[in-house]
Amino acid sequence: MQRVDPSPSLFADLYQLTMAQALWQSGTTAKATFSLYFREHLPGRAFYVFAGLHEALEHLQRFSFETRDIEYLGSTGLFDSEFMDYLLSLRFTGRVRAMPEGAIVFAGEPVIEVSAPMIEAQIPETFLVNSVNANTLLASKAARIVHAAHGRNVYDFAARRTHGLDAADIFARVSYMVGFDGTSNLTAGARHGIPVVGTMAHSFVSAFEDETDAYRAYARSFPAASTLLVDTYDTLNGTLRAIQVAREMRAAGHELNAIRLDSGNLAELSMECRALLNRNGFGGVRILASGALDEYSIEELLRVCAPIDGFGVGTKAGVSHDAPWADSVYKVVAYDGRPVMKLSDRKETMPGSKQVYRYLSRSYRPLRDVMAAAGEARPAVCARPMLTEVMRNGEITVDLPDLGELKSRFAAEFAKLDMRYKKLHNPDAYEVAISDDLSGLHAGTAARLRRRSGASIGESLPERA
Amino acid sequence: MQRVDPSPSLFADLYQLTMAQALWQSGTTAKATFSLYFREHLPGRAFYVFAGLHEALEHLQRFSFETRDIEYLGSTGLFDSEFMDYLLSLRFTGRVRAMPEGAIVFAGEPVIEVSAPMIEAQIPETFLVNSVNANTLLASKAARIVHAAHGRNVYDFAARRTHGLDAADIFARVSYMVGFDGTSNLTAGARHGIPVVGTMAHSFVSAFEDETDAYRAYARSFPAASTLLVDTYDTLNGTLRAIQVAREMRAAGHELNAIRLDSGNLAELSMECRALLNRNGFGGVRILASGALDEYSIEELLRVCAPIDGFGVGTKAGVSHDAPWADSVYKVVAYDGRPVMKLSDRKETMPGSKQVYRYLSRSYRPLRDVMAAAGEARPAVCARPMLTEVMRNGEITVDLPDLGELKSRFAAEFAKLDMRYKKLHNPDAYEVAISDDLSGLHAGTAARLRRRSGASIGESLPERA
Repeated sequence: MQRVDPSPSLFADLYQLTMAQALWQSGTTAKATFSLYFREHLPGRAFYVFAGLHEALEHLQRFSFETRDIEYLGSTGLFDSEFMDYLLSLRFTGRVRAMPEGAIVFAGEPVIEVSAPMIEAQIPETFLVNSVNANTLLASKAARIVHAAHGRNVYDFAARRTHGLDAADIFARVSYMVGFDGTSNLTAGARHGIPVVGTMAHSFVSAFEDETDAYRAYARSFPAASTLLVDTYDTLNGTLRAIQVAREMRAAGHELNAIRLDSGNLAELSMECRALLNRNGFGGVRILASGALDEYSIEELLRVCAPIDGFGVGTKAGVSHDAPWADSVYKVVAYDGRPVMKLSDRKETMPGSKQVYRYLSRSYRPLRDVMAAAGEARPAVCARPMLTEVMRNGEITVDLPDLGELKSRFAAEFAKLDMRYKKLHNPDAYEVAISDDLSGLHAGTAARLRRRSGASIGESLPERA
Repeated sequence: MQRVDPSPSLFADLYQLTMAQALWQSGTTAKATFSLYFREHLPGRAFYVFAGLHEALEHLQRFSFETRDIEYLGSTGLFDSEFMDYLLSLRFTGRVRAMPEGAIVFAGEPVIEVSAPMIEAQIPETFLVNSVNANTLLASKAARIVHAAHGRNVYDFAARRTHGLDAADIFARVSYMVGFDGTSNLTAGARHGIPVVGTMAHSFVSAFEDETDAYRAYARSFPAASTLLVDTYDTLNGTLRAIQVAREMRAAGHELNAIRLDSGNLAELSMECRALLNRNGFGGVRILASGALDEYSIEELLRVCAPIDGFGVGTKAGVSHDAPWADSVYKVVAYDGRPVMKLSDRKETMPGSKQVYRYLSRSYRPLRDVMAAAGEARPAVCARPMLTEVMRNGEITVDLPDLGELKSRFAAEFAKLDMRYKKLHNPDAYEVAISDDLSGLHAGTAARLRRRSGASIGESLPERA
């Protein structure tokens, strides 16, 4: 097989293409509806922050195989040449309904519904699931950290720890969307317009024979934006040296911005450093902390009132360390007008196109969601339909809000979500009910499929026929 | 700040560039040596599989900022224009010594040592750590799965679950290197020449009113390469229908390749399906299993002799679910000819350029490693020096083996590693000793730095001076 660098449309499992050929050759090409959703909540969590919609829509809108993709597929020996000609002309022409980027969503609820000719809807599965899964997983983790930080600044320092460069970009973007204040990641800063932040590394301090000289050199280069890392040798001594340099800066008309702690007992050290800074007239110098922080350690630090003004989170946050995967799936729910579902053990799907209604209180706080069949009448009371059309005939039909707007929207929506669903430990489950119509459809479809597939091994056994 | 899509060289934390400016402006530009290593083993594990070297070397060889990168940096308002001119001409001109790609390595051992003018060595840190960390983490996970599968086929099905598309590519490549038999990921197959494999999805079955018709359609399109997914409705009934189609295929001169189980009790179902297949004359039809498998569940399945011929692993493997992050670091160990180290609480570094000697038994089995100072005499007994020069004056000096060669090498090396280090639970710790010379250097450097930085808060306190 030849080696090529394929187009983004070829980011797919092989079976997407083999199934496509079998569908095409058997004429199984009617319209299908697929639903992308998260089967369950992550352990100890009660909501997801849906993200990745924009990437998904752009993928669908641009979907097109290149000649080099087809040549590679040809080299596998699996594909028919007429089918490969068909692939070369294939575009996504379907309709997409989706929740908004940044929406707070719950397990089982469709976040994206794709309706298109079967093959067009099937092939993008691998990309859509990867992208929505990674974005949502990392956004959900970051939202917990923002919640735990109670208004202190939080910065993305994860660029070296994420699983590859894409993930670093995703984490920087979605963490900013859910409330982080900036990122250390220059690539993400450049691409998305996120404020970039930074301090210094231990290697910088080590390159100078004297720690104080290292601080002086940095302060000379960045008199208005210096954060000095004080733990290379000894945190308290480092802080004293930082104070000395802060005095020199002040004499020259500048103020030291912050010091950073990166090891040891951050609660105790931050209190000692705060006291040293205050006693020496540097009450305005901020204290930043880093070092494998997550929502749990931040909660602990704030519980004991550690005087930390900002947290740099990387290692654990950037991989969602306590929940690094989510069971997101993309399942066909209707084919050629008939509702379909799988009955697999513990993996049953809910048939048919759907709407999710979010019931809101008088102050617009989410009370509960109801999953309904798409055609049902809208509830009489105040309930927001969460899925709206975002693509028609393969073209995006809405203005996708920019990152700044998404950030404001998320802050407003997250503030409305009751605290009991946001608790870091044992949050309450948010109620997601199923409408009577949808329950009926589910029962009817399951019964029909069980009849057809044979209720037990005793029925219509081919080998005993 | 403007938005641009920057060059790969700008994948860096902001502080790499601010430190560079302070180093440049203060004339702190002598040669430095940095060491990339893993601080500790992952929980319950005794070795790493080092991967990502080739990507790292290619990054260094191509390192160069583009005008759009510099314009973006300029837009942050942090950088001096003379310094930005310098950045535009900056290339990596240093020397790199490294362990081979695919080497089995242990915590604390340098896997890459970079010696270059300070700024050139510092800026690539973020990229090098991200890349080596992600590659090594995923390779190490995949090697455990290969070990657990005891010669059964293992396939990468992780494309939809990794954190972004890069990670899917990395997992496909490194899992193949350590012994997987193929990947479902077409992009990775196309780029790296990895065999691509695939079955079918539940959606394919659902698109047909009758499960048997779905199997027939697939078998007609792929008479020589059909794997039928049997659990959409009921696994045993699905298997009977697959047998019926296998009979039809045989009548037409073809053989069904395999069935796939994706839910339920895989041990029991595989035995029942195996019996059904055998009883009907299809002893040659293989059974594949998938569904959140990892080394632990594979070990359990094989312990009870589940007749599974191949495992498709995705969700948990592709994110290294039980150890999604590793503490890899890139630390300066020498600057301008003097050894340096940090003394931070629990994050001490080992100073100076190093060599790692791997002592081998008469049958070339690794016995123990010794970390030595780079200049020490080579041991008299059979000990392989693990770090060799791979780049000089910024140019790669060795032929980087292709993936097929890496795969064979890894298989040979992994077979030599004693079973007690490979156990999935409570493996023995492999001995990594420190040479006397290196111990002496460490003690001397620590003492010198402690004296300089002040042994305690009571000494040379600036505010009490």
